[in-house]
Amino acid sequence: MRIGLGLSYFGGAYNGWQSQPNGLTIQDKLEKALSNVAGQPVRVSCSGRTDAGVHACLQVAHFDTLVERRMESWVRGTNAGLPRDIAVHWAVSVPDEFHCRSSALRRRYVYILKESSVRPGLETGRIGWSHRPLDYSRLREAADLFIGEHDFSAFRAAQCQALSPIKTMFRLDVTQYPRTHCSYWRFDFEATAFLHHMIRNIMGSLLMVGDGRRNCHWLSEVIEKKNRHLAAPTFPSDGLYFMGPVYDARWAIPQEGNGLDWLGI
Amino acid sequence: MRIGLGLSYFGGAYNGWQSQPNGLTIQDKLEKALSNVAGQPVRVSCSGRTDAGVHACLQVAHFDTLVERRMESWVRGTNAGLPRDIAVHWAVSVPDEFHCRSSALRRRYVYILKESSVRPGLETGRIGWSHRPLDYSRLREAADLFIGEHDFSAFRAAQCQALSPIKTMFRLDVTQYPRTHCSYWRFDFEATAFLHHMIRNIMGSLLMVGDGRRNCHWLSEVIEKKNRHLAAPTFPSDGLYFMGPVYDARWAIPQEGNGLDWLGI
Repeated sequence: MRIGLGLSYFGGAYNGWQSQPNGLTIQDKLEKALSNVAGQPVRVSCSGRTDAGVHACLQVAHFDTLVERRMESWVRGTNAGLPRDIAVHWAVSVPDEFHCRSSALRRRYVYILKESSVRPGLETGRIGWSHRPLDYSRLREAADLFIGEHDFSAFRAAQCQALSPIKTMFRLDVTQYPRTHCSYWRFDFEATAFLHHMIRNIMGSLLMVGDGRRNCHWLSEVIEKKNRHLAAPTFPSDGLYFMGPVYDARWAIPQEGNGLDWLGI
Repeated sequence: MRIGLGLSYFGGAYNGWQSQPNGLTIQDKLEKALSNVAGQPVRVSCSGRTDAGVHACLQVAHFDTLVERRMESWVRGTNAGLPRDIAVHWAVSVPDEFHCRSSALRRRYVYILKESSVRPGLETGRIGWSHRPLDYSRLREAADLFIGEHDFSAFRAAQCQALSPIKTMFRLDVTQYPRTHCSYWRFDFEATAFLHHMIRNIMGSLLMVGDGRRNCHWLSEVIEKKNRHLAAPTFPSDGLYFMGPVYDARWAIPQEGNGLDWLGI
């Protein structure tokens, strides 16, 4: 039978999702914990391979097994064997035609940024940082350039394994949360899929426009010319959260994860 | 001259504030960074010695030096030499009669707790956890027992170096933040000073009442009998934040720190 899992994690200590020989990945930790519960090896697929240092509020995974366990055991037993910074929220039986990656219609990510003269201390690893003041109108205008179907080659890492650089961006919302001595900014991304480092590369270029170092004319050209070397450097992974995949309602996949409620933004 | 500093930190990687031979404390890291800026050894005092794993939204420290630097250099230069999870927010010149510890009239702490069937993953190290449902009225009634002047010996760690176990608790607020699949709880403490492990020990006993394992009659007796062995075990440090000391306004000490704005609660 095929079982779907919802999990959340803090990615700071891991080399991303995808299994590596050193075992320091989310996939390795999850497979080890699930295999302990099953009493036999379990291999998992995921809905979006998060990069090193990237967090997940909701990652959906699935695995096939002949072992019979109550769904609650897949949750509690697995959590008992996982490191503290990874948690399984739910386990559900899913049809064999469901595949957590190929059934996903879209993916959602959030980037959280702090605009402040002082670098983050308490929030380090969980939030990006700009010491330069940012302008909402400039960011909004720049974000609009990414909406729709584009060839995102200018924002694609050299090691990207995607078949095509053409993706459709449905949403890139920019929200400012002013505080007394700083501002928090939230960027909501939703697209069919994302290339390797795509959001971190977009963030770098967006902020170049938002803080006035570049303008939208420059950004249009960067997108147009499809050349990674013209765009800004890759922005740190610290503030990047995978919010989960979007599926057709017929699969009835739970949406429960960690949320960013705890950030309040 | 005497200089006051405001800093924030994530305490998860440190053996608390107070200097130790292994150097893995906030004080050691801060003195090293300040000494680099000064070009000579600097020793600091603090307003509240946080325990291993405890965080600070605002810790106030001070040091004496004959070295002349712009206040901005004490901030930026020190931040450049500090680990990423510690940040200096401000530096101000203070009178020699000001002492960050003995001038503090009161201290404020916050404990953040998640009530959830699933343990925290993404938030691990930053939030306490109760898998048992909590009742607001029970917690409120229990919290009231701590208000006022008490001998807090039942909530004092064996290694506590305080001269007296008698402290005055001005405030112990309990606030619930309901979410879809969990609740966050915030506990606001304000007292003249706190004994070693006092808040973590109070939290353990408060939750025993809040989740129904004990009642307020039991808690009254625990307080009355002043015996550490009758109270609940020490609760984890994960969700404990030092919010800063309270000073007389004449010292004009800034209140700027990290706040818990970023938690939204």
